[in-house]
Amino acid sequence: MDHFPLYRQLASHYRQAIEAGTLRAGERMPSVRTLMERHDVSLSTALQTCRYLESQGIVEARPRSGYFVCHKPRSALARVAEPGIALPDTAQYVGINEKVSAILVQAMNAKVQTNLGVACGAPELYPNEPLRQAAVRALRQSPEIYGRAVPRNGYPGLRAVLAKRAMHASMNLSADDIVITHGCTEALNLAIRAVAQPGDIIAVESPTFYGVLQILESLGMRALEIPTSPQTGISLEALELAARTYNNIKAVVVVPHLQNPLGAIMPESHKDRLVTWCEANRIALIEDDTYALLTDDDTPLPALKSRDHTGNVIHCASLHKTVAPGMRVGWMSAGKWRGRVEMLKYAHSRPNESLSQQVAASFLGSGAFDRHLRRLRTHLYTQRQQVAQAIDGYFPAGTRLTVPAGGFGLWVELPDQRDSQAVFESALEQGIRVAPGIMFSNSSRFASFLRISCGTPYNSELDQAVRKLARIVDGARRLPDLPAQV
Amino acid sequence: MDHFPLYRQLASHYRQAIEAGTLRAGERMPSVRTLMERHDVSLSTALQTCRYLESQGIVEARPRSGYFVCHKPRSALARVAEPGIALPDTAQYVGINEKVSAILVQAMNAKVQTNLGVACGAPELYPNEPLRQAAVRALRQSPEIYGRAVPRNGYPGLRAVLAKRAMHASMNLSADDIVITHGCTEALNLAIRAVAQPGDIIAVESPTFYGVLQILESLGMRALEIPTSPQTGISLEALELAARTYNNIKAVVVVPHLQNPLGAIMPESHKDRLVTWCEANRIALIEDDTYALLTDDDTPLPALKSRDHTGNVIHCASLHKTVAPGMRVGWMSAGKWRGRVEMLKYAHSRPNESLSQQVAASFLGSGAFDRHLRRLRTHLYTQRQQVAQAIDGYFPAGTRLTVPAGGFGLWVELPDQRDSQAVFESALEQGIRVAPGIMFSNSSRFASFLRISCGTPYNSELDQAVRKLARIVDGARRLPDLPAQV
Repeated sequence: MDHFPLYRQLASHYRQAIEAGTLRAGERMPSVRTLMERHDVSLSTALQTCRYLESQGIVEARPRSGYFVCHKPRSALARVAEPGIALPDTAQYVGINEKVSAILVQAMNAKVQTNLGVACGAPELYPNEPLRQAAVRALRQSPEIYGRAVPRNGYPGLRAVLAKRAMHASMNLSADDIVITHGCTEALNLAIRAVAQPGDIIAVESPTFYGVLQILESLGMRALEIPTSPQTGISLEALELAARTYNNIKAVVVVPHLQNPLGAIMPESHKDRLVTWCEANRIALIEDDTYALLTDDDTPLPALKSRDHTGNVIHCASLHKTVAPGMRVGWMSAGKWRGRVEMLKYAHSRPNESLSQQVAASFLGSGAFDRHLRRLRTHLYTQRQQVAQAIDGYFPAGTRLTVPAGGFGLWVELPDQRDSQAVFESALEQGIRVAPGIMFSNSSRFASFLRISCGTPYNSELDQAVRKLARIVDGARRLPDLPAQV
Repeated sequence: MDHFPLYRQLASHYRQAIEAGTLRAGERMPSVRTLMERHDVSLSTALQTCRYLESQGIVEARPRSGYFVCHKPRSALARVAEPGIALPDTAQYVGINEKVSAILVQAMNAKVQTNLGVACGAPELYPNEPLRQAAVRALRQSPEIYGRAVPRNGYPGLRAVLAKRAMHASMNLSADDIVITHGCTEALNLAIRAVAQPGDIIAVESPTFYGVLQILESLGMRALEIPTSPQTGISLEALELAARTYNNIKAVVVVPHLQNPLGAIMPESHKDRLVTWCEANRIALIEDDTYALLTDDDTPLPALKSRDHTGNVIHCASLHKTVAPGMRVGWMSAGKWRGRVEMLKYAHSRPNESLSQQVAASFLGSGAFDRHLRRLRTHLYTQRQQVAQAIDGYFPAGTRLTVPAGGFGLWVELPDQRDSQAVFESALEQGIRVAPGIMFSNSSRFASFLRISCGTPYNSELDQAVRKLARIVDGARRLPDLPAQV
């Protein structure tokens, strides 16, 4: 992150302090002079820091008094507890597909008025008009776009823009390193198939994105769930411990930034250790970096791939969450597995079609992309705070909440081991969709959790829905019996 | 086919007689009166038959003399021989991916002036302008198309149009039976994964579309190659014999119409027998029906799926060859495996994006679709005849040729067991791309064959290329040793 301006690094530092409650609303920020002395920075940098925090609505200037925190901490609710570093759970290797499919089909067939279940923004949060214009332009510029077979591995213009953007995450990639895929989901499939065979063990976060569990089960591979912190991501101690017990782990799949569903952001020191450890143990490291650009703080986060010197890290990402939920444009850099990934992509679905790749290249290469990201981050930040406050106000006592520093979701632990699947079902009957914790693990460890997504701008209807949901939680049955570990 | 007008059935009958050389150029067609008596049809039907053949350029009317064949038989070259019904080849189960990948990468990196290697039409053969207009319209009508998450299993409008079109191939499907995929290739992957596991045996045609061999190898499944006739497709005797030897065949994958690379069209009686046999033996039948609409004769061919009463047939197709090589829009009807296919599609790549589905729905639902198909068929017919005649004129004596009744390709057997991979490599150096026979089998049985595609309008450059190719064939080395079976 050395190339990033100092004032932004400092602002990030103070923002975190405010989020953590170290500096509280109404408190005075350290003075410009204090900032200069404490951080050994120039007057200009100290001033820029304060003005940047002010522009973000985190502090406010009061005449002749300095800057004051005008920002509430995220939520008064207790945070979700850290997991223990016990041995991972291998009890239930199969069945996730049917479980998840059943929930998805149930949700799809219901008449949903308020969608708190999908980790995605409302359509109005996305740059529909610039994308539409880019599409019309591409159709004019390439009149034979539908009649001409598409280039292998992807549209060169998009691969070039992505290679350039990868520098923001401290990666050094060439356009040739990048294979365009049908979304991040296809990228993850290809990555996993490139490094492992049916029957192999893949270490995953617990809780994890249910898509990964579906993929593993559909490929006949086995998910080894590693305890994961809502703050710092996968437990490296637990992972190292697991590798001593299971000597045939083929890969680790992690979401280092805004982990799904927890929202954890992996500290830089953990990234170093994880990359080095995987390499030393000849375990492939698969990085799902879909959410990296959605942190409240727009300081770019270095990808795990940026620390990869031997090609052991496969980086996967997509535009689905950040730019266009209506596009299937993902990509991957597969390091030493590039040849195998190219072959698998070709054998499985052939190259992506050109139009959306051209549209994506045009948008990502323009200044509109960063402007859109700033706007989206601000919206998501506000929406997350509003839903968190509503949960805080309406949910029964004992509810615990993790409010991540970016992205779509909140991770909510219901009090007294209430059954979140029962909550899901009752809520759906009232037109409210949430994601029950059982989707995110093969175990029942998260059966009392909900992932609540905040992709939709807050309004009175949404407020009513959270209120209804709170009543449902309050009246929900308790889980019959839970493993001792929880 | 009962619903199809009688005069078209009759015209088809005579066309085949002319193609086969039973009626030769310059010969008089049976008179209208003879047609009436011989086929027990009305004057009107007999007249319509002759006029239809005339409109197709197959016969010409001479004043007061009747109709005369004005159409040369496809080629003076001998046809490729029928295969024996020996036991199938299981010698080489693996390695196709690397072999095919190497050839594809080699072809891709070369500077190709004349592409006789890709089973696809030139861009100008496709309805670029109507598709472009449909896209602009869809972008106007759905301004949030990129910002809105896409519906599961595909755009309902496209599924409805496809269900309607399926009636032309005598299938009775509802929109809900259809899952939209990223091309026919993804459909085949999902079909195979739905019915079989790694290690399982899948019966395929020999030679077969190399994509199927790539898929099987990438999934760790085993291809059992069944001898296949250039005229009638997979040998049912050989298949039944194989099933007695290998009692664990999980599926049969066939291209019933314009088989790739042979161009065979399966007779109706074979279809009946195959569907019934698969069902009785609890072997899934996977039908790749990509080329059905490209027969010279536009009489619709009933899909294998139309004979399926138990859900044992999975029908797969796409727009890639017929409407838009630049689109990735395929679809499938998975019968009793529908639930599993829906789950696999979701787990592997999520639903396709909306725009191209809306474009496809709009085009397929319009009269422009059938007009385009008629034009494309005529072009392909002419191009195929022209290339076949050039091969006839230029290639060394002893060359054998199969000219299918539709589609893109010719299947050419080089004389004296010349090495077609050597031909491929030399031709590529001269900017000419062809597909060597080794791509279409795990065995070396077709090492002296070429698939030559005729997707490009014939001109002097193409003529020169075929002439060059002939010289390369003439000078090519012979294969060191070939299995006795050839």
